[in-house]
This record gives sequence, structure tokens and C-alpha cells, in this order.
Amino acid sequence: MSADAGAGGATARGDGATARAGDAAGGGTGGAPFQVGLLGHGTVGGAFAKLLEERADEIERFNGRRPVISGVLTRTRGDFQEILAGADLLVELMGGIEPAREHLLTAMRAGKDVVSANKQLLSQHGEELFETAREHGVRLRFEAAVAGAVPVVRVLEESLSATPIERIHGIVNGTTNFILTEMTAGASYAEALAQAQRSGYAEADPSDDVSGRDAAAKMAILARLAFGTPVHLDDVHYEGIEHLHRDDMQYARELGLGLKLIGTAERLEGGVSVRVYPAFLYGGHPLASVLGPFNAVTLESEAITEITLSGPGAGGRQTANAVLGDVVSVMTGGARPPAPPLALPLIEDVASAFYLHLDVADHPGVLAGVTRALGEQDVSIKSVVQRGLGENARLVMVTHPVLESSMRVAVEQIGTFDFVRSPPRFIRVIEEEFV
Amino acid sequence: MSADAGAGGATARGDGATARAGDAAGGGTGGAPFQVGLLGHGTVGGAFAKLLEERADEIERFNGRRPVISGVLTRTRGDFQEILAGADLLVELMGGIEPAREHLLTAMRAGKDVVSANKQLLSQHGEELFETAREHGVRLRFEAAVAGAVPVVRVLEESLSATPIERIHGIVNGTTNFILTEMTAGASYAEALAQAQRSGYAEADPSDDVSGRDAAAKMAILARLAFGTPVHLDDVHYEGIEHLHRDDMQYARELGLGLKLIGTAERLEGGVSVRVYPAFLYGGHPLASVLGPFNAVTLESEAITEITLSGPGAGGRQTANAVLGDVVSVMTGGARPPAPPLALPLIEDVASAFYLHLDVADHPGVLAGVTRALGEQDVSIKSVVQRGLGENARLVMVTHPVLESSMRVAVEQIGTFDFVRSPPRFIRVIEEEFV
Repeated sequence: MSADAGAGGATARGDGATARAGDAAGGGTGGAPFQVGLLGHGTVGGAFAKLLEERADEIERFNGRRPVISGVLTRTRGDFQEILAGADLLVELMGGIEPAREHLLTAMRAGKDVVSANKQLLSQHGEELFETAREHGVRLRFEAAVAGAVPVVRVLEESLSATPIERIHGIVNGTTNFILTEMTAGASYAEALAQAQRSGYAEADPSDDVSGRDAAAKMAILARLAFGTPVHLDDVHYEGIEHLHRDDMQYARELGLGLKLIGTAERLEGGVSVRVYPAFLYGGHPLASVLGPFNAVTLESEAITEITLSGPGAGGRQTANAVLGDVVSVMTGGARPPAPPLALPLIEDVASAFYLHLDVADHPGVLAGVTRALGEQDVSIKSVVQRGLGENARLVMVTHPVLESSMRVAVEQIGTFDFVRSPPRFIRVIEEEFV
Repeated sequence: MSADAGAGGATARGDGATARAGDAAGGGTGGAPFQVGLLGHGTVGGAFAKLLEERADEIERFNGRRPVISGVLTRTRGDFQEILAGADLLVELMGGIEPAREHLLTAMRAGKDVVSANKQLLSQHGEELFETAREHGVRLRFEAAVAGAVPVVRVLEESLSATPIERIHGIVNGTTNFILTEMTAGASYAEALAQAQRSGYAEADPSDDVSGRDAAAKMAILARLAFGTPVHLDDVHYEGIEHLHRDDMQYARELGLGLKLIGTAERLEGGVSVRVYPAFLYGGHPLASVLGPFNAVTLESEAITEITLSGPGAGGRQTANAVLGDVVSVMTGGARPPAPPLALPLIEDVASAFYLHLDVADHPGVLAGVTRALGEQDVSIKSVVQRGLGENARLVMVTHPVLESSMRVAVEQIGTFDFVRSPPRFIRVIEEEFV
């Protein structure tokens, strides 16, 4: 080893102040190697390093520079400052808030472009990161933070950067979509969750997924991109799928509806709304046919009608592929620092159609009492189905669109009626507007 | 007018040699206006000019420069050389080969970036255009040439530029998809075509669409992007939808299959294959649910599994929006000159599963004769259905995947049997491979 050092090793190439010794080995016909510092070497980090090596030849062929991993930081090895100094670009795949946040800020302040797949960080400290990128004129890319292999970040940032988006509906959490797909096929929530865990689609502690919080983080990021206004994870109202009943799934199946965990970001009169909630989708909706662990996002705008992007939601290799796409886009100069934010108000109370499920004792006057309580809040009924008889009847209603606050007041009052035998449940309904 | 000339008119701004007088009027707080020369002012050209004006404020806000139309060339007005001299970028929306080709080449040789929506030109003279862009280090963008509002060109060029694509399936012609959707609902081909013409989805002479030639041009462009190898329109084998029968639609409906005009570009052992043909799709295929004039493209790669992009296929405003996206990407530096081409052989003979429809006289030995003819070409049968009796029986078969050349030989022989009462028909079948 010592005998070979002079021939194989230590002379740094002169093309840039940050080029490091030993990394030029892979350099080909083009310029100096493009040095990628990697923070984090877990599932995604490992898959990324492998993919980058597999694709280096092809990237060099069309780019002139060969990407190489110039340093790796894990909990047990690597020195951040040294990796930073030797890198043309930092890729952050550590996850979590700290030290990922501090490392990204430090890198950008040092004038380095960065790529991250960190949805927690972007949805909670996005403005600080964007502001730092803008101040220092560096690129901050994060395709892999939302919807896995589906290139929705790039499409919003670039293809549609001049298109005023009016609404995004997304299935952005593969775990819950897998569980709901299993439940639609007849499984209980517990069975479906167990199946998701066995298949590797759900973690041992699934609460971040099933509560809707993971989807909320992704919708915050998409809303920021689509509307240009800061949206923090805390601004996103989210509901999960833990409280869905088999009855609801059966209702969906009978009527040909899909039941999905939907994230919505939309521009409304006077502001924007961002929320995550289980919803019935009519059969013709482009998201209704998205099954299993897939993700899909529908982008609506007057100028494009609607575009739908779908694909696998996660998986180390898919995520790594999205990260590599970001790296290549930085290498080819294809991204710009973020624009300064607008400030649009966030609207909490929005209108939806609702499905309302009531377990009732079928006495005279029940339907009249329910419809009066709804009518007092201007909730207008589109359809009613009564099932069962006597003490075990069920009323299932679908309303016309109404403000959620009105629906909640009406349902609260209905819950106090003595003929209502269990807490009323309601689920939003998304009707198709296109095609 | 002469009195105002000094104040309002003739002094060019100093920011660039090509800036023209009179266009700075819209300029805002940022740099000089970004001068867009527009070639062609038909449906798409007019929609583009309108959209650019509507969005100029917003583009300037995040870009620093305001885009303005600095000159328009139509058949009756405008001077090409003058427009070229005054433009930072040329947008070609004339259509057809000449003079669009000559104008684009001239512009790139003068060092100007160009945007085009011209699928004929790109599929027939793409290499000349790419080579010229590369030589002169300019950008050539053409999102609107394929699949209307669906950003598949950008996704292939950028998000997936480092992803080895294995296969693309696309519904890239909205006219034929509309016609097939109507036929699936029971219309005859003639009725569906007339409906498409009334709805503005088909032209008075629909032959470019219904023959598959329009889809072939788009698939040539996508194949070039995905595989990096030159693909000329003439290299694409295409079949249209004119010869589809109601019987075929009924068969599709009964079995829950979709019948679509599919474009396929795939990497095979030893080369690539690009082709357009009507095909039965199994219900779970992501393209099976694409209805009416919509377009959709499925991109398959080991690293991403599969991504599907869908949206409206055409329409002046949707196409104009895609063109404007290209303009903005050039303004923000987000595109690079094309890479030099690879040279992969084009493979003509590929394997598919087939549906085979035979009108036969139901005599003893018919099935034996048919299966022997198929067996001699190693065509293996997956399922057979016989319908009707006596002189009016039908045999419908689905085969396992087999080389098209073998299938053709077998079908030709079957066509000579005296019990076969009309020319045998076959349609390819695409089975789902994912989910």
C-alpha cells in the first residue's frame, strides 16, 4: 500500500479549490469529477451511493463530468466539515430535524448546492432553508421528499412554474393507500395494518402514516411549491384512517366509490387551504384507481385542465433514483434558487360534500329530526338510504357541498338525539369535476 | 406620429445587442425584458401570445425578467431576419416542415435558443436539429410536441435523465382515444369519427390521426429522448384504428379489457423497438382507464417500477401552456443542449400476446386445423372461446407472447383454409406486469 501511494493516490486535481485527492480515480474524458458529499447511509443513502456508481458512466457521457461520492457522514464515521470542503454538492439523507437542518444551512452558507429527501425538515423549516438558498444563490432540490418516484416536485417547479395551479389532490402516503386497498377487499383495519407491516409497507410504529401526519408534511411542501406561500406542517389540518369502519368500506364498494386518504391543497377566495382527510372518490376520479402502495397527484389549473402523475410511493431504490435525478439537475444547471414567498392567508373552514352515517332506532320522527338539524345549518341532502329496521337501523346520507363548520354543528346536535345509538360519523366526498 | 418618434420609439436599450426599440414598455423592476420572437399565429400561436401576456407579471416576479413578444411572423406579415435579430429566443408554432425547419436552423446557428411544438419536424429532422443545437450550444425545447399538457418530455429529459428507461407505453393521440372510447360505448367507427369531428377532436381529414401516423411521430420523439438513439418517423411501424370491428369492442367489453391505440418504445436485447398499434389492455393496466381525448404515458424502469403521466392531449390553451413552460425553462437556464446520439439498432420483429378472431364454418377438424397451423409456428394458445354454430361460428383465441413474424405466418396459413369465411383478424394484447 505505501509503495503504491505515489502512483495511485495523493495528488489533487487542479480544476477546483474543493477537489480532493483520491476521488479523481473515476474521472473520464470530461472535466473534473463532480464531488458529491453524502450525509446519511441508511436504506436510501446506501441505495443512492450504489445507484450513483452504476450510472456514473452514463451521466458522464451526457454531462461531461463524472459524479463520485467524495465523502460519507454517518453517526459513527466521517467529519462534516471535511466532507463539506471536498464536495461540489451535499446530499442529505439523514432524516429528522437535527443535525440535518444545521448541516444543510451550513452547506448553503458556504455556497454549496444541496439535495435533500427530508420531508419533516422541509415541512417544518422550509422557509428558513428557502431563504438561505436564496440569500446565497444556491440550489435546494428535494424531489424525493414527496411521492417517491413520482416527479411532482419537478413538474410543479419547472414545467408548471408559469401555470397558476388551482388545486392539488394527492394520494401521497403509500402505507395508508395499501391499508385502504386491503380494507376495500374485505380486511379489517387491524388485519390490513398487520399485512402492511408484514409486506414492509408500514413501520412497527405506524402512527406517523395512519394519523395523516406524513401526508400532511408532503402536502405542506406541495402547497408551498404550487402557491408560493409559506405552509408549515402545523398549518395543515389532518385526519387519519384509524377510525374508518368496515361499514364505510362496504358503502364505498356498493356504490363504486373509492375510499382514499386524500391530501388537498387549493386556492380559494381569499387564501389557500391545505388538509388531509379520508374521502370517498367517485369512480371516474383519476385517483380512484390508484391501488396498493402507489402514490398519485392530480394538478388542476384552468390552463391544463388536470394532469395526473402516479407511481410507486416509496422504496429505497425509487427514492434514491429521485435523489440522483436532483443531483443530475444540479450538475446540468437545471434549477434555480427559490423565489421569495408570497403571503396568502390560510383558510381553515372549507366546503365539501359529506357522507353521514347514523346508527338509529327507527322510531317515527327520526328522519324529520335529522333533516331539521341539518336544515338549520343549511346542509342540503343529496341522497338518503335507510337500512335495517327497528332498534338497529342505519341512515346513510350524502350532502351537497357545505362548509365544514356548519356540518360539524349539525352533526354535534344530531349526536345528542336520544334515537341516535352511537356517535355519528362523516366522511368527505369528492365528486369528479372533469372529463 | 413623427413628432413622438424621439420620445417613444427608436433608441435601442443597451442591455444586449439584440434588444429592440419599443418592446421595453412592459419591463418591470428586473433586467431587460426577455424578447420572444413568435413564428406562427394560428390557434396555438394566438393562445400562446395571450397566455404570455397574462402571466408576464408572475414570471417577472420569480425570474427578474419580463417576457414580451418582440415580433410575430405569419404568412402575411413580419420579417424573419428582423424578428430573429430582435429576439432572445424564438418560438416556432408554424407547423409543417418548411419553412419551420429552415427558420429553426437559422436561429440556432445565430446562437438563439428555440422552442417548438412541431412533432412532424422533430420526428423527421430531429437529428439535424439536435446536432445544430449541440454545435452552437443552444437550447432546443419541445414539450408541446408530445402529449399536449402532459409534461413527459421534461420528465424524460430531466427528472429521469439518469434513469435507464426500459419501456414506454403511451396513448399519445387524443382523437383516436376519443373514437375508441365512443366505440366502447357502442358507437360504430363511422359514428364515433363523426362525433369526434363535431366535438372538435378530429379534423375534416382525420387520416393522420386514425392511421396511427401522428402517434408514430410522437413515439419517435419519445424514443429518441428515452434511449438516446436517433429514431425517424419512418422507423416506426404503425397501424391505425380504421379496421377495428364492433365485434372486437364487444369482446373487449365482455372481458373487461380496454381497446386502445398504443405507442410502444422499448429497449430489447440488441436494440430498440418503436411501434404504434391497437391493443387490448387488461383492466389493471394504468392506461386502461384513460378515456376520451386524454393522453397518458407510462414510463417503466427497474429503478422506478413505473410512472404514469396523464392529462388532456391537446387544445390550443393546453399546448400554449406547455410552450410557455419551455420558454420559462430557457429563461431560468433550466435546459442544456442535447447530448450526442447513441446508435442502437432498431428491431422490427417483437413478441406480443395476440387476440385472434376467426369467422369459421363449424365443421369437424376446424379447431385441429387452426391449432396445428399455430403450433407449427410455435404459437401457444392461452384461451379459446367458440361462439355460434354451423356456418356462422366464431373462434376467438388469445395466445401467449410470440414473435409477430411467427404469428403472421400462422395467420396467413389459417387464412387459406376453406372453412375460414373471412380474413382472420388479430390484435395485440398487453398484459399487466406490475402491481
